[in-house]
Amino acid sequence: MTVTHPRGFIAAGITAGLKASGKKDVALVVNEGPTFVAAGVFTSNRVVAAPVVWTRQVVADGRADAVVLNSGGANAATGPEGFLDTHTTAEHVASALQAQGRDVSPGDVAVCSTGLIGMRLPMSTLLAGVDAAVASLAPDGGAVAAEAIMTTDSVAKTTVFEGDGWSIGGMAKGAGMLAPGMATMLCVITTDAIIDPAQARLALTEAVRTTFNRLDSDGCMSTNDTVVLMSSGASGFQPSPSEFQTALTAAAHDIAQQLLRDAEGAEHDIAIRVVNATSELAAEKVARAVSRSNLFKAAIFGKDPNWGRIISAVGTVPEDEAPFNAETLDVWVNGVHACKASGVGEDRSLIDLNPRAVDIVIDLHAGEATATVWTNDLTHDYVHENSAYST
Amino acid sequence: MTVTHPRGFIAAGITAGLKASGKKDVALVVNEGPTFVAAGVFTSNRVVAAPVVWTRQVVADGRADAVVLNSGGANAATGPEGFLDTHTTAEHVASALQAQGRDVSPGDVAVCSTGLIGMRLPMSTLLAGVDAAVASLAPDGGAVAAEAIMTTDSVAKTTVFEGDGWSIGGMAKGAGMLAPGMATMLCVITTDAIIDPAQARLALTEAVRTTFNRLDSDGCMSTNDTVVLMSSGASGFQPSPSEFQTALTAAAHDIAQQLLRDAEGAEHDIAIRVVNATSELAAEKVARAVSRSNLFKAAIFGKDPNWGRIISAVGTVPEDEAPFNAETLDVWVNGVHACKASGVGEDRSLIDLNPRAVDIVIDLHAGEATATVWTNDLTHDYVHENSAYST
Repeated sequence: MTVTHPRGFIAAGITAGLKASGKKDVALVVNEGPTFVAAGVFTSNRVVAAPVVWTRQVVADGRADAVVLNSGGANAATGPEGFLDTHTTAEHVASALQAQGRDVSPGDVAVCSTGLIGMRLPMSTLLAGVDAAVASLAPDGGAVAAEAIMTTDSVAKTTVFEGDGWSIGGMAKGAGMLAPGMATMLCVITTDAIIDPAQARLALTEAVRTTFNRLDSDGCMSTNDTVVLMSSGASGFQPSPSEFQTALTAAAHDIAQQLLRDAEGAEHDIAIRVVNATSELAAEKVARAVSRSNLFKAAIFGKDPNWGRIISAVGTVPEDEAPFNAETLDVWVNGVHACKASGVGEDRSLIDLNPRAVDIVIDLHAGEATATVWTNDLTHDYVHENSAYST
Repeated sequence: MTVTHPRGFIAAGITAGLKASGKKDVALVVNEGPTFVAAGVFTSNRVVAAPVVWTRQVVADGRADAVVLNSGGANAATGPEGFLDTHTTAEHVASALQAQGRDVSPGDVAVCSTGLIGMRLPMSTLLAGVDAAVASLAPDGGAVAAEAIMTTDSVAKTTVFEGDGWSIGGMAKGAGMLAPGMATMLCVITTDAIIDPAQARLALTEAVRTTFNRLDSDGCMSTNDTVVLMSSGASGFQPSPSEFQTALTAAAHDIAQQLLRDAEGAEHDIAIRVVNATSELAAEKVARAVSRSNLFKAAIFGKDPNWGRIISAVGTVPEDEAPFNAETLDVWVNGVHACKASGVGEDRSLIDLNPRAVDIVIDLHAGEATATVWTNDLTHDYVHENSAYST
């Protein structure tokens, strides 16, 4: 039941008519308390959608009572009118919830949108959808809510983590444009654990750092990425900060891996692990350089063990960002030590690239830090799906 | 006649047998003087092929008497043995030229290689090819030399510039992995103008900066990129530094545009021009971010006027690298003002993406500097060609 698994949450997912397909396109998640703690992490893109500007403000005080999400339009690059549309949506949600006797202020309603950039949302359709969503809010609404935020996703992404008397639930959409700061994704995570706003913010930031921010499906960073965490405190349990952090990171990791597995057109899920770097950041820089090499990604699609494309990508990272000796690199591809001391290692024909999972290990021999970045191969279907999105 | 158009040069291109196809694979260009001025610009990749290490040393003193180039193997990631192979090749060239009565030292023989990374070169085949090349050196050998350096190129790239009593000739290979610092390319430029080594170095660096280094076909930077300039001084004419600079940049631009038009699998040539930036470097950073967006490049392939992918790529550039207000961006796609003040502009359906040439203009409204980066679309054929290169 995803976001409605923890106590204190109700949700809905309905068809407003924003998608030409007639599939569900508006989701609503409402926190019934007793606490209304919230935190958010957003895209690091400087060009941000109106709902990102709005929702940053909503969670700035550590509180959100509800989050409304629509697919079928990103409300990005829509100017002041687009921001007004987001504001109107939040006010409409608050009014509809107030009519049910809930004391919700518009300033506590987070808004998320996903879809095509550069188009205004059809507001009358959306607001009618909001009314329908409010009317169908239910304690088991998590599944339909998860369905309503899908765009090119082939499956809904949900997670549940069971703590000791408390739990975490989550839902997300995202199937492309996965890149740091973050994937093109919307994600709502709920918990009935008792946490305070500062803890929520810290825990969410840390969880995102090593999960969503390490996904780099196609190097493209969206204008709308949002992860919202809401706590109802309804379990009455207060886990230790480290216990909650571990659980939240596990939940985020689970969702991130689901996003990876559903990336548009992908046929391989590639883990690029850089070891013995001088720092975690240096390791991440190197892994990300490899994850962004189209030549490498096309080779993996073709099951071509062309490891030269790995070390040539490693070599593009500036020395001040990742110190290492370019003449002593080691690379393993699916367990085969193909590159030894930057030279020819085991025979490339030993590498089996038939499995969907591909495991790249790069040893920099420069320090003791490690980082993993996950990406996908570059396929015919990726090009196909992304060559005709808006038309 | 490309590199043999200027006086004082002879060249050859022969089949050594390095390529399974039986096509020409070894080229040789020899400067007959009276001057032997040379300069080189090389990949900025930290992982460099043995011939790059060698040729950097050769041109360090401003002199080169000959350049030998092979396709069919990059001699990269081949360790100390690979460097020895390059050294042996240069010594073999010098010996063979000495046998013809030419006073050539091995330390003045530049070596370039291109092909698969991570494989040793078959040296007996290569050295026999060197002998054959030396034997067939001719004043009209430029065309066959240009043919012998092709890899996945569909056409040979050559240029000639006529100065006032002097000239420039050039040949290049490169059809993928085109990225800054430079394209995956080998390029030899010759001139019979009288220039000194310092001028050669400065002029070549400046010419490369705004031509080859502004090509970003697929964001991938090679281990072997080399541009060598050689001057014979045989014309007896000494153009002014600015006159020579203009000519050299024009020749490099001509070759760079030929590389762009022949990029693997491309169906569109895209010029991304960023205007009104705070500096040329800032403009270049923004243009390069767009040139590396797979989503943007796939959309252009699909003739989908999805301009949201342009501004979302613009927004990924950190503020300290390119100051601008993300809410006042303007974008034109093939002349249509599709994005105004970061919002919806003219109707996207007005954009015609049928022509091969695509012209993107991005106005940052932040300063007065301009830069253009050239790239290609991301196509099915790109993925296809690059998914089975080594196997």
